[in-house]
Amino acid sequence: MKKHLVVMFLIIAACTQQPVKTTQNPNIKMVSTFDVALDMKSQKQLESEFDNYLNPKNLDTWMKHMSSKPHHVGSPWSKQNAEYAANKFKEWGYESAVETFEVLVPFPKIRKLSMVEPEKVELKLYEPAVEGDRSSEMTKDVLPGYNAFSADGNVTGDLVFVNYGLNEDYEELKRMGINVKGKIVIAKYGRSFRGIKPKIAYEQGAIGCIMYSDPKDDGYVVGDVYPIGPYRNEFGIQRGSVLDMPARPGDALTPGYAATKDAERLSIDEAPTIMKIPVMPISYADALPLLKAIKGPVAPDSWKGGLPITYHIGPGPAKVNLHLEFDWGLRTAYNPVGRMIGSVYPDEWIMRGNHHDGWGHGASDPISGMVSLMEEARAIGELTKTGWRPKRTLIYAGWDAEEPGLLGSTEWVEYNLADIRKKMIVYINTDGTGVGYLSMGGSHSLEKFVNEVIRDVQDPVHDVSLDTRLRSRMRVREYNSGNYEGIKESERADLRMYAMGAGSDYTAFLHHAGVPALNMAFGGESGGGAYHSLYDTYEYYKKFSDGNFVYGTTLSKVNGRLVLRLSEADILPFRFVNMVDNIGQFIKDNKKLYQVVQQSTEERNRLLDNEDFTISRNPKKTYLPPERLPQVPGFDFKPLDDAFARLTSNAWKYEDALFNFKKGSLSAEKKSEINALLKGVDQAFINIEGLPRRDWFKNMMYAPGYYTGYGVKTLPGIREGLEERQWDEVRKYIKEVSKALDRASVNINSASRILDEN
Amino acid sequence: MKKHLVVMFLIIAACTQQPVKTTQNPNIKMVSTFDVALDMKSQKQLESEFDNYLNPKNLDTWMKHMSSKPHHVGSPWSKQNAEYAANKFKEWGYESAVETFEVLVPFPKIRKLSMVEPEKVELKLYEPAVEGDRSSEMTKDVLPGYNAFSADGNVTGDLVFVNYGLNEDYEELKRMGINVKGKIVIAKYGRSFRGIKPKIAYEQGAIGCIMYSDPKDDGYVVGDVYPIGPYRNEFGIQRGSVLDMPARPGDALTPGYAATKDAERLSIDEAPTIMKIPVMPISYADALPLLKAIKGPVAPDSWKGGLPITYHIGPGPAKVNLHLEFDWGLRTAYNPVGRMIGSVYPDEWIMRGNHHDGWGHGASDPISGMVSLMEEARAIGELTKTGWRPKRTLIYAGWDAEEPGLLGSTEWVEYNLADIRKKMIVYINTDGTGVGYLSMGGSHSLEKFVNEVIRDVQDPVHDVSLDTRLRSRMRVREYNSGNYEGIKESERADLRMYAMGAGSDYTAFLHHAGVPALNMAFGGESGGGAYHSLYDTYEYYKKFSDGNFVYGTTLSKVNGRLVLRLSEADILPFRFVNMVDNIGQFIKDNKKLYQVVQQSTEERNRLLDNEDFTISRNPKKTYLPPERLPQVPGFDFKPLDDAFARLTSNAWKYEDALFNFKKGSLSAEKKSEINALLKGVDQAFINIEGLPRRDWFKNMMYAPGYYTGYGVKTLPGIREGLEERQWDEVRKYIKEVSKALDRASVNINSASRILDEN
Repeated sequence: MKKHLVVMFLIIAACTQQPVKTTQNPNIKMVSTFDVALDMKSQKQLESEFDNYLNPKNLDTWMKHMSSKPHHVGSPWSKQNAEYAANKFKEWGYESAVETFEVLVPFPKIRKLSMVEPEKVELKLYEPAVEGDRSSEMTKDVLPGYNAFSADGNVTGDLVFVNYGLNEDYEELKRMGINVKGKIVIAKYGRSFRGIKPKIAYEQGAIGCIMYSDPKDDGYVVGDVYPIGPYRNEFGIQRGSVLDMPARPGDALTPGYAATKDAERLSIDEAPTIMKIPVMPISYADALPLLKAIKGPVAPDSWKGGLPITYHIGPGPAKVNLHLEFDWGLRTAYNPVGRMIGSVYPDEWIMRGNHHDGWGHGASDPISGMVSLMEEARAIGELTKTGWRPKRTLIYAGWDAEEPGLLGSTEWVEYNLADIRKKMIVYINTDGTGVGYLSMGGSHSLEKFVNEVIRDVQDPVHDVSLDTRLRSRMRVREYNSGNYEGIKESERADLRMYAMGAGSDYTAFLHHAGVPALNMAFGGESGGGAYHSLYDTYEYYKKFSDGNFVYGTTLSKVNGRLVLRLSEADILPFRFVNMVDNIGQFIKDNKKLYQVVQQSTEERNRLLDNEDFTISRNPKKTYLPPERLPQVPGFDFKPLDDAFARLTSNAWKYEDALFNFKKGSLSAEKKSEINALLKGVDQAFINIEGLPRRDWFKNMMYAPGYYTGYGVKTLPGIREGLEERQWDEVRKYIKEVSKALDRASVNINSASRILDEN
Repeated sequence: MKKHLVVMFLIIAACTQQPVKTTQNPNIKMVSTFDVALDMKSQKQLESEFDNYLNPKNLDTWMKHMSSKPHHVGSPWSKQNAEYAANKFKEWGYESAVETFEVLVPFPKIRKLSMVEPEKVELKLYEPAVEGDRSSEMTKDVLPGYNAFSADGNVTGDLVFVNYGLNEDYEELKRMGINVKGKIVIAKYGRSFRGIKPKIAYEQGAIGCIMYSDPKDDGYVVGDVYPIGPYRNEFGIQRGSVLDMPARPGDALTPGYAATKDAERLSIDEAPTIMKIPVMPISYADALPLLKAIKGPVAPDSWKGGLPITYHIGPGPAKVNLHLEFDWGLRTAYNPVGRMIGSVYPDEWIMRGNHHDGWGHGASDPISGMVSLMEEARAIGELTKTGWRPKRTLIYAGWDAEEPGLLGSTEWVEYNLADIRKKMIVYINTDGTGVGYLSMGGSHSLEKFVNEVIRDVQDPVHDVSLDTRLRSRMRVREYNSGNYEGIKESERADLRMYAMGAGSDYTAFLHHAGVPALNMAFGGESGGGAYHSLYDTYEYYKKFSDGNFVYGTTLSKVNGRLVLRLSEADILPFRFVNMVDNIGQFIKDNKKLYQVVQQSTEERNRLLDNEDFTISRNPKKTYLPPERLPQVPGFDFKPLDDAFARLTSNAWKYEDALFNFKKGSLSAEKKSEINALLKGVDQAFINIEGLPRRDWFKNMMYAPGYYTGYGVKTLPGIREGLEERQWDEVRKYIKEVSKALDRASVNINSASRILDEN
């Protein structure tokens, strides 16, 4: 116990100045889940049997079937796939049902985009079939390139090229003396959730928004294009939703409650998450004549893409007409759900999910992940044939309508919210998956647990564990970076998991319900420029991604172990020293951001006093000085530092309690008491008021960026307050985060006391 | 005196650990050249009269004339321009002559490049006239696109794309399992002197080398192309020399001695600075079909250019035939030289130079600088009409044959070496000049002096001094970098001058003779993709560069002041605290490099032991681990640190002596004694043995990089020893540099003593 206490105090001391870096000492021996909560021999036996049932051929067969036709929500093949999965679940021993919601999903009726000046060009907006890909010929039921939740509209205006269409791009435009009021913007895809681009364009006064895939981002600049290579060819169009998901995902007409058949609904005009201007995605073949016709200032270097032109910003003389109309119908979302009721803790739920709807044939996104989930479910089903039953309840779900805005999963969470808060231990998400390295994101109370698993699973190509391969890559990257000093992430005792924004179906679980969640996938060696296009096909996946499904099967091994250990553990495998290490980093990052905001404000104003921006500018170009900024006030981070110190102390107390704990010595009652407390730690981060401007997002640790979308903001109340200079929000959320940490402290402390008393 | 001594000790203390950063304290009041060596009133009066004589229209008239025809060495217009300048010098009151040398300059006879596989493509190798540029129509006497000092040859081979063709690129190729033996390489222009590319290609076994201008570097990616904008259009070819100048510039056949008519000459086969393989420059229009036809691995991201293709590396299947033959004739280089003999110190020379030969019409390069020099010479001539005469001898030269390899200036220096070593105080170079910010490079003993001048000259467009504008830009850059901490360069008491490699005619003066040298130009707002092409014309310059010649005239003001103050100063304005501040930085940089070499070696070997490069690699791609490196030995930097501490101490002693010096109190004899000592400081850096593999380069402080060319290496003996892992060289040059510093110390110390004794 002493050893841990000394470390703990060192850490607290260190943390108040330099919050992190020392908490993860590879030299401290820590107990594993096997030491305290699982019988190693029987568990390893179970996992080995599980592995033996896995067969890559099943993934191949199912992908071929499920991706053989377009299967967006509302399509016949989406329903078919849902029923197909539900039947499989049933066949494998699960209680199975297809659960449905009625969700708003617009389909395109009119879709026209043409350049009207300086010359008339009717754009193609069309993806041809390619040689060697039979799926790309089967275009019945394929939704053409469009953005779901664009507004209806018929607008004509001068084009302005706005880079990625983010706030900083508009700041740059302002300095160049350009605004987009009454104009149509054209933005590159990438760097944010696509819905951010039209949202900001609208806020800036634009009347329409075109998005295109620049070849520099996923086309010929990156590598050979489909069908020669995996990158986006000149005709590939990225479909996708522009629902304002960072404000709230889920059905646009039923805010915060389930989209059941008879639910009360907003009218479309009232629905705040629907875009207010028409938005349209195009290929780079179609973008080329538009961008070529734009004149005005040359774009800054960092804005330039890979087309063979000089990128200009405009406005005009290129002028376009954009005419869009949609069929604003309700569609039935079909969620196949299979349940295997726990033999010991039926009211403790471990859930797995992966969406099954795609844009087009959706082989990689999402079927590659779906078939890995199915094989995992099947192998667990096989285990039950020998008489074994999971102690906790396992739930396997296929979500429909993820693509238009996480609709299937969000409505399911809203519908089952009370039960979820009470019963759900962990939600583990997958989505598309490919070849390469394991990517792992999620709640950091699970970081140590996940690390235990990835040390036990071998990479299917290289003869090392997934952990070893990831560390090798980190070491090579550290070597290539040329920075040989300081503490290296590759030497951290456990590999860090990324914090999650809102990229897939974990969103409602993590950010709305406060359920600890994970997101797992393989990637990094698959290439990839078929995303959301006609070319995300079985043929493509076989040729360029995990064609022999060995990584898909390995993903089953990882998630299967997570599920089986979570199911069987006496004491749930939440571990808080990793959590505080990460929270310490979030605090440090936010303080650093505060410092940067403060210093850059002072520095900018000093340079304005000097007229440096004017004196140094090139007189041939318009480049105005930036605006003078009001001074940044002081903030008192002490409540946060104190709450963090208490949380750190409690996290290490719990480690000590585990260290001294004798496996099997707890009564069933005490176990339940402890597990309820542990499960409550992440839920303690929920603040029922939610975040500013978006009360649906209630997690005080993580949120998708309001102006970035997929990308996470840690301690979002504080961070976005700093970024958007809302000083009252910063003050408020320093307090709210402190309270959240203290609520978590109470649970951890209580759990430790029960263990200690034992 | 005390104040300075305290500072001095602080600095020495600081320097042994952190050599630099504190020596330039803006709060220490230092004496100016006016305080100790010049009568402020009469000098300012002289400079103001000088300014009044300057007239931008002259620059315009002369440029129009001198760039009206192609004027490479050996062309009729080169001779005409030389005589034109010589006559002007005479007209303005100078003793004037055209001094000649007979230098080897090959002209192309056969020039063919075609793709022979996978399809036959005859390349154009041709620059058409463009609309609105009459000069581009006048192509009589224009040398077509070629590389001077390419070998003759007729070779056929598979193409390999080698990025910029530098050593690190071949290391990358090696890891991809590709070598260039028996192949023809195609390299992008840029990142090095062009001659480096074929030199390394040859060392690697290639049989031919093609170089092209990628649109990402100076074509449409950067901005609009000529004639719409200033950047390189698809047909623009960068001509240029591939003489091995980093080994030795100057005439290839007369190594180290002047190329007089009767000089003994090497045969062409014996001449080591002539390339051993055929080399050819092409436009990006011609590069496109070649690069498109190359297959094999996709190039790394940092290798990719701006053409609308996926860049592959090869080898092949693209195969080319390159057939080159040259007329290897001697040409007469005409150097017009004007002398105005000093009234007081006729044997102390201040020299200005700018080359007059160009590739094509060469309006920007070099006539823009030449006409600025001429206007400066004319205004000084005007001053003498009122009875004033310079105290020291002024020499104005126009160099011929700079483009093929600094031939005119190098032969002149070799011819006059003894006199130069004895008499020349400073050589001030210019070359092309444009619009924007003053760029200033040179010997750091002159840094403080140059800074005094740029504080006295106004920017012609913005109502601030040149110094203020440069600092504004630095502050904005520092602000944009987001790094608000640490000591800022913009707050340095004097702005730093860059250390010089071998980009222009200062080379022989600085690196061979040890004469303190400067290089001055305006730039940064001129754009520029006409370099060494048919389009470097008067029309282009008028439209896109300094069309009203206000910056050209300002350059005359800067250099005129440098010349007039150097001419008139009682005590020569060398100042050594700036010099030691810079040398301290060189030492620090070299020690840092040593640390990086050591750490990266250890780290690489550790990763090799772990097999990290193998485990982390993408199995679909060939990417071999890097080679294991032998351990790096320890080096004893103490002799260098000690010599540097002595030099620092002496530099501050000299400052103190100046601080206490009473202007006008020195006898003529003592003045001469001091000035001779001061002049000798920079020459003390000369080591007669020279650098490894290139004994012509004798300066221990600076040299062009043996494998980079233009770019400077500071303390080159040590630095290149570290870079190329020649440990004996590192040991040797730590000692040689220490000795050089001590030689300089002796001179500075003696000068201080004379001042103190006074």
